[in-house]
Amino acid sequence: VPKVDQKHREARRTQILEAARRCFARDGFAETSIADIVAESGLSSGAIYTYFRGKPAIVTAVAETVSGDLLAALDESALDSLPDRLKTMAKEEGHARVIAQVWGQGAASEPMRSTVRETHESVLAQLIEVIEAHRADGRLPPGPPAAEVAEPFLALCSGYSLLLAVDVDVEPAPFRRALSAVLRQVP
Amino acid sequence: VPKVDQKHREARRTQILEAARRCFARDGFAETSIADIVAESGLSSGAIYTYFRGKPAIVTAVAETVSGDLLAALDESALDSLPDRLKTMAKEEGHARVIAQVWGQGAASEPMRSTVRETHESVLAQLIEVIEAHRADGRLPPGPPAAEVAEPFLALCSGYSLLLAVDVDVEPAPFRRALSAVLRQVP
Repeated sequence: VPKVDQKHREARRTQILEAARRCFARDGFAETSIADIVAESGLSSGAIYTYFRGKPAIVTAVAETVSGDLLAALDESALDSLPDRLKTMAKEEGHARVIAQVWGQGAASEPMRSTVRETHESVLAQLIEVIEAHRADGRLPPGPPAAEVAEPFLALCSGYSLLLAVDVDVEPAPFRRALSAVLRQVP
Repeated sequence: VPKVDQKHREARRTQILEAARRCFARDGFAETSIADIVAESGLSSGAIYTYFRGKPAIVTAVAETVSGDLLAALDESALDSLPDRLKTMAKEEGHARVIAQVWGQGAASEPMRSTVRETHESVLAQLIEVIEAHRADGRLPPGPPAAEVAEPFLALCSGYSLLLAVDVDVEPAPFRRALSAVLRQVP
């Protein structure tokens, strides 16, 4: 495949996924049809089917992009400013709305359950590296082994996103302090 | 209404809700029909409609009972043993599977969004009282105001339940320590 075609294809794929994400955040997975995503994307329905076999494939791909966004946030943000970043992502990109539905789908049935579990393992592995790197260069104080604090840290972020997803007016500051406490765990 | 009839009605209602919860935990909200709940409960379909107008009403009532169970667990357990209790509830009662789907439904649309938000506010208010009571009688060490730590504490429990809902093999011990750290927050 020539490089320019490859680039074009990726741009189209992203265009579809962003449209799908807006639909999912606004109307929910169940109430969004392929036709809605087509309309939102501005592409033709034929075009969509060259990229995705159907709605389940789009849901899975959107689930992967939202956890990709979380990974990027983990990597770029000071770890204890994550709640603020998640709040912005919830507002601007519907991140929380989509991620809460992804967990719900995973709880409901396979194959989403396996997808969610695998994505969790990969985000967790990357978070462990981020915590270790931040400790090594002094951005974070010392604490228990990263492998022991990373999963509760991530769970706290997920729980915070659930609150954002249902429009609880939640302040980031207590969550910043809680995340910090989880990472340090002074005995 | 005579007292014995009232009691009979409540027992029937509970029987329906327990059947619904088993169906939801096993097959998911979307794939569970009223007929499935009827079959699981052993009652007649006519009987179900005297208690609930339809599936959305059953989903809402189940959502309320699972948060009732969480409240009971908060009240009875040592707070830092909650992860173990949640793990048992996930296994025996499908608690995590149902609660994750409730959050997903809340993220997807109203009126579940308001239900979830209101339930959160009421669980949060009760948790604040429990933390204060546990501090007052020495079961918990001092820490920041309960109103500041309760919401992150609850979010960490929710995030832990999400992991249980998708069968991540998660150890309670790091979560016990993390919950403790959130409550104490040594500066």
